[in-house]
Amino acid sequence: MNLQCPIPLTADEVVRLGHGSGGEMTQRLIDQYIQPVFSNPWLSQAHDSATLPWKPDQLVFTTDSFVISPLFFPGGNIGELAVYGTVNDLAMAGAEPKFLSCGLILEEGLPLETLQRVLISMAEAARNSGITLVTGDTKVVEKGRGDGLYINTSGIGTLIREQPIDPNRICQGDSIILSGDLGRHGIAVMAIREGLEFESDLLSDCAPLNGVVAQMINAGIEVHCLRDLTRGGLATALVELAENCGRTFVLEESKIPVCDAVQGACELLGLDPLYVANEGRFVSFVPEAGVKLALSILRKATAYSSFAVIGTVGGGNSSQVILKNNLGCDRLLQRLPGEQLPRIC
Amino acid sequence: MNLQCPIPLTADEVVRLGHGSGGEMTQRLIDQYIQPVFSNPWLSQAHDSATLPWKPDQLVFTTDSFVISPLFFPGGNIGELAVYGTVNDLAMAGAEPKFLSCGLILEEGLPLETLQRVLISMAEAARNSGITLVTGDTKVVEKGRGDGLYINTSGIGTLIREQPIDPNRICQGDSIILSGDLGRHGIAVMAIREGLEFESDLLSDCAPLNGVVAQMINAGIEVHCLRDLTRGGLATALVELAENCGRTFVLEESKIPVCDAVQGACELLGLDPLYVANEGRFVSFVPEAGVKLALSILRKATAYSSFAVIGTVGGGNSSQVILKNNLGCDRLLQRLPGEQLPRIC
Repeated sequence: MNLQCPIPLTADEVVRLGHGSGGEMTQRLIDQYIQPVFSNPWLSQAHDSATLPWKPDQLVFTTDSFVISPLFFPGGNIGELAVYGTVNDLAMAGAEPKFLSCGLILEEGLPLETLQRVLISMAEAARNSGITLVTGDTKVVEKGRGDGLYINTSGIGTLIREQPIDPNRICQGDSIILSGDLGRHGIAVMAIREGLEFESDLLSDCAPLNGVVAQMINAGIEVHCLRDLTRGGLATALVELAENCGRTFVLEESKIPVCDAVQGACELLGLDPLYVANEGRFVSFVPEAGVKLALSILRKATAYSSFAVIGTVGGGNSSQVILKNNLGCDRLLQRLPGEQLPRIC
Repeated sequence: MNLQCPIPLTADEVVRLGHGSGGEMTQRLIDQYIQPVFSNPWLSQAHDSATLPWKPDQLVFTTDSFVISPLFFPGGNIGELAVYGTVNDLAMAGAEPKFLSCGLILEEGLPLETLQRVLISMAEAARNSGITLVTGDTKVVEKGRGDGLYINTSGIGTLIREQPIDPNRICQGDSIILSGDLGRHGIAVMAIREGLEFESDLLSDCAPLNGVVAQMINAGIEVHCLRDLTRGGLATALVELAENCGRTFVLEESKIPVCDAVQGACELLGLDPLYVANEGRFVSFVPEAGVKLALSILRKATAYSSFAVIGTVGGGNSSQVILKNNLGCDRLLQRLPGEQLPRIC
């Protein structure tokens, strides 16, 4: 006896509300588009949660939502950004990334081919950074209540060493090392969004940072603090850290690397590269003894050669970030006051 | 020397794009609306990730996004739903909830007072279920690219006992126990959304399930599997489990509790209560020896007295869910084919 009737299913070229029902269409979406791409034993548990092995006596936990517009930009897309963004937040706490979750909010009408490209890109980014996607969720909202695709990723990692990587460990005399030139992600996204054309093909710097961070820590460098330079850029990140640790940072403007294409675009658009978002750049606070080794690791590891010591932690305790320019003038940096470019990540 | 200029900040009655900049306005949002509500040492680390103590050699990890419309509904709101939804996913894997993340996607123009009410509700729900919010993220999208507020929560928990709670452990002869009557959440949301008025004041069943699950497991009941009945309702959950474990479930329709208000609304709207969403109901698969104790725990623990043994796991291995009605007819249940009510959670 077969009681089963065939279910009338429509062609699946775009996301429909039914894909968020939790029923048959959701299951087909998962079976066709998600499981094959991320296939692993945890995801195949097909349960409400993933049960995972764990050894260390600490864990590092972070979350990030990604609402970038457009979904695809020169040098990357929302999928790899969603993986690297969370991987990098773990790395900045001195952690090795282990497990990833993925929450999708799809807008009705999103082409399934677009979703598939993003998911494949996420899977590749996860492989590149050694993190495993173990649990997920998919919701669908009506047309006009989203913008194609929003992604939340949460990540769990293990501390590479017991020594904390923490704003409170920043000490007087620490060198502030910037891992590469500023502003490529922000300008690349702005260029495509605003239809600007630049002479050079500027690509986002979107990249995983866990590899180079692990090398620095494993080399025995006493890294006091790390911070990636996403929304708000270098200036906002440093102001935040200065406030957290209660110290004064002194930067030399001439040491801060900005490539010609970004500099030109910033002048054209009236932007300050110190506030433009990056997705593959970080600052490290390293005591004098570790600087040489840190620079040699950066030299071997990064795609760009423009890493630099851009300043030091001064003796004051006034939570200030002072930028010294070539003319000997001081500028006090503040957080980004308003919004430079919405939905940059 | 004070180089600091006052930043021109506008009145903060609604969410603006600048609240998502990662700069000054984001910081103020966090300082004024988030930190005071969730205050705890992990959140105060003010770092990209939270570093947390951990003892067990396993962890349970889950994620869920919440896009429910409207944000406030009879018996709850998106905030408590976002906490209990993830707490319940952990509980269904036999885990005690420990740490929670919160990713907010705010639509420009959302009244900050609304956000505050939701956050306060989240904090209360977290306290009720013993989970601690340790890390978060806030993004803002332009008006017309969201719907007020979407929330992602991810959760980490510890297994209460080593014995897995897993679809593969479902055995022939297991009783299928339903923890309470069906459909209150779905009908309560539909009623307010569609402007329907019912005689009785129907409230969502939205509630944390970790307490009662912990009691069942700690009482020594050999719980084989648990599943909460959210999107897709009881029918979809059971079909999924039957497929996972490759067994046949036989249900008695007359044993499945549905209150008069839900039954009436379903008849009016042409809905099947078996497919209507719940947010505080679950099924447990328990061997004969544990059924009496399980029922006595449900009797003491739940708000409604309408829990019941609704069926058993049969001997076949055809992955079917058969519903027997009073007339002796069999109906084969399937997953929800399309969408019964979009954005129910």
